[in-house]
Amino acid sequence: MKNRPIGIFDSGVGGLTVVKQMFKKLPNEKIIYLGDTARVPYGTKSPETIKRFSIENADFLLKFNVKIIVVACNTASSTSMEELIKHVRVPVVGVIKPGARKAVTVTRNNRIGVIGTYTTIKSKAYVREIKNISPKIDIMSKPCPLFVPLVEEGWLREKATFAIAEKYLASFRRKGIDTLVLGCTHYPLLKQVIGKVMGKSVKIIDSASSVAEEVHAILMSMGELSDSKKKPHHRFFATDAVEHFVRVGERFLGTKIHRAERANYV
Amino acid sequence: MKNRPIGIFDSGVGGLTVVKQMFKKLPNEKIIYLGDTARVPYGTKSPETIKRFSIENADFLLKFNVKIIVVACNTASSTSMEELIKHVRVPVVGVIKPGARKAVTVTRNNRIGVIGTYTTIKSKAYVREIKNISPKIDIMSKPCPLFVPLVEEGWLREKATFAIAEKYLASFRRKGIDTLVLGCTHYPLLKQVIGKVMGKSVKIIDSASSVAEEVHAILMSMGELSDSKKKPHHRFFATDAVEHFVRVGERFLGTKIHRAERANYV
Repeated sequence: MKNRPIGIFDSGVGGLTVVKQMFKKLPNEKIIYLGDTARVPYGTKSPETIKRFSIENADFLLKFNVKIIVVACNTASSTSMEELIKHVRVPVVGVIKPGARKAVTVTRNNRIGVIGTYTTIKSKAYVREIKNISPKIDIMSKPCPLFVPLVEEGWLREKATFAIAEKYLASFRRKGIDTLVLGCTHYPLLKQVIGKVMGKSVKIIDSASSVAEEVHAILMSMGELSDSKKKPHHRFFATDAVEHFVRVGERFLGTKIHRAERANYV
Repeated sequence: MKNRPIGIFDSGVGGLTVVKQMFKKLPNEKIIYLGDTARVPYGTKSPETIKRFSIENADFLLKFNVKIIVVACNTASSTSMEELIKHVRVPVVGVIKPGARKAVTVTRNNRIGVIGTYTTIKSKAYVREIKNISPKIDIMSKPCPLFVPLVEEGWLREKATFAIAEKYLASFRRKGIDTLVLGCTHYPLLKQVIGKVMGKSVKIIDSASSVAEEVHAILMSMGELSDSKKKPHHRFFATDAVEHFVRVGERFLGTKIHRAERANYV
């Protein structure tokens, strides 16, 4: 049973930043990745629609007999965890809780900023999780919807990218936060621009590495860590435009994707 | 029969720029509008997926006994016209042909630029249509994928918007085009910025008004123009997030949307 794969889904390619950390921290585990590129982005859609899409994505992964499902998308994690946990018999891990925990550990002045998509910010999922851990923390959050298309376009250090980041982040600077949570899997690719705009005193947090640690902890606690000795054969699926998925996805994964397959349920 | 409604679909709110022109040129006609906001945007998706979505959208409109279907989305028009015409028994009108015709009428130096989404530009639909009308015209085309999210964010005249437009349009300026086709229904909202970057000598073409004229011509030729004397009761549908559709949609339509309904087939 322990050599069953780990299932990960995202609205598109962004979740590959989570896969990158899984490769590092769980190198023996086989990964089945699903990007819902036919319906991307989720960040401007309603919670009801995202819940429906998330259940369909989980059902697809369950066909591969996965031992755990990782919701790599912040928007899906902030809206659909309850439904997914109810719907699915294996453990389900999202990206909000691990990111929130890391931010609380890192902040010194108890002022945390959170950026993400419209739906993630509107859900207040990060605010709830952070307040759960430490009610005294002051949280400021804001949607930055242009960051996703900038990353998809590959404009990671353009003049326009800085202008957009400055406009979005000005209020966080005025507020004096010392920790900024990147509440969207696309944003780590803009870490350099965001870091420059915010200044060196602000710690930039992305959930990807914390999620991998959480998955490790859960699998270990259940005695479900893989003990296979052979190199795992990972599989990547997309619901549309697999060539585009491979080309853009390699930027997120940081290594080559040899092949992506079309998932046909959408 | 002539008092049946006109059906219009788009991937989201952008097609409301076409509706605006229909209101002007065909004030007696009742409009059923459908925005596929659950699966927006189409511009980065594959032709196969867009074809499937387009057929589903047309089927939804047919339930209202429409007398003609207008494909207000450039991406759907550039990929799915053949399938739609085969699938549907009423006339189907896209936005590419009317836009191409208008551009050819307007150009003086026979150098036309076309901007649009990835999929629209990759389809070469505008190039084909323009060459069909006048093979000697020199056409230069380029995708500008950041324009759609800029419009959706309402950043119509920001510093970043100018920086992005300058980067996208520099090569058109070097080429000396005198006519630029806005091959995406979102782009008319950036007409001011695009006009400023391109300079006064370049004519900016959007398809919306030409489409309304084409629909008028077709209905007239079939004796199907409405002769109803009462104010038409239009209906607006969206496959997701109807409040957001209404809020953003009013920017495109230029007048109030009193109500939008949820279309449940997605």
